[in-house]
Amino acid sequence: MRGKFITVEGPDGAGKTTQITRLSEHLMGQGKKVKVTREPGGTLLGEKLRDLLLFTENPVPEAEALIYAASRAQLVKNVILPALSEGYVVLCDRFVDSSLAYQGWARGLGIDEVLKINKWFLKECWPDLTILLDIDPEVSLKRLKGEKDRLEMENMEFHKKVRQGFLKVHKSFPDRIVIVDAAKSPEQIFSDILQAFDKRL
Amino acid sequence: MRGKFITVEGPDGAGKTTQITRLSEHLMGQGKKVKVTREPGGTLLGEKLRDLLLFTENPVPEAEALIYAASRAQLVKNVILPALSEGYVVLCDRFVDSSLAYQGWARGLGIDEVLKINKWFLKECWPDLTILLDIDPEVSLKRLKGEKDRLEMENMEFHKKVRQGFLKVHKSFPDRIVIVDAAKSPEQIFSDILQAFDKRL
Repeated sequence: MRGKFITVEGPDGAGKTTQITRLSEHLMGQGKKVKVTREPGGTLLGEKLRDLLLFTENPVPEAEALIYAASRAQLVKNVILPALSEGYVVLCDRFVDSSLAYQGWARGLGIDEVLKINKWFLKECWPDLTILLDIDPEVSLKRLKGEKDRLEMENMEFHKKVRQGFLKVHKSFPDRIVIVDAAKSPEQIFSDILQAFDKRL
Repeated sequence: MRGKFITVEGPDGAGKTTQITRLSEHLMGQGKKVKVTREPGGTLLGEKLRDLLLFTENPVPEAEALIYAASRAQLVKNVILPALSEGYVVLCDRFVDSSLAYQGWARGLGIDEVLKINKWFLKECWPDLTILLDIDPEVSLKRLKGEKDRLEMENMEFHKKVRQGFLKVHKSFPDRIVIVDAAKSPEQIFSDILQAFDKRL
């Protein structure tokens, strides 16, 4: 039986990693096989692209969207699809919706344009459920510690557009994407995620 | 006045670099401003992507096509379009037709599919003239010296498909692409290129 493909979206500082770790432990406690991965990255090629994207020369918006797509194509074919076919629950930290929100909306390339490129190689690999951790960037950015990457260093206006972008993407995929208020405590967020999980899957 | 955008295509070992150097000197001798660049590469980001593409882990075909496209998008926006707007003749070693022949045809992704992705960001940046150095791969591969990259190490069947791919692409763009027989001597090839140049531009 095909496993389930769950993605967790939202800005840096929303708590994606914490929640994915919890969810992973919860599901393994239920006896499920769980595979955790992330974007960009998750493969050798993807991790190299991640370094390029987050820590080097500014790519033009089109190049940025194409590199994220390349990392995603590699992850889908070499990691996600094989794991799903072996019955794993795959939990992915960011996926296609990040491209739609960041490059499609915040960078101004157009959500539909970026969607088209991704549809080309995603084919049957759409998430069964997407948890969108929604939060005011004024709050989430304050949570970030340590060295910031290229996208985290963008100005507040950009981060506000990203949030707007995620909410627009949610309107296009209301059945797949569940919004969770990420301003709450980690315990409350996790309980909301489990509720969405039980209701939708 | 907008400059001219010339691309030179064909397999490794066809003599692209030699001919571009000659053509560049010839045009500069005529008092023209000439900008020589190459793909993948030509920008800081592009050169890093080039290393990734030619010397690391096998990307899946879709990722390969997307990374070439990303490098191209960066080159177009940061190098080619600015040079053209300043009146330069831009000579580019490989461009979109390589993606169509290698990923579209030889890797089996479909020429039209790869074309669609490239059309998205190429917009007005199509070559005014493309010289296709056509040659039997049995001959061109023997010319290669030194360490081979990942694509050069593909088997003969792949290289034959690439040649077939280039010839198919020519059929789609007969006005833009001129085929030059690259089995001839460098002097003869150059004379054929100049002839195409005078006739088409």
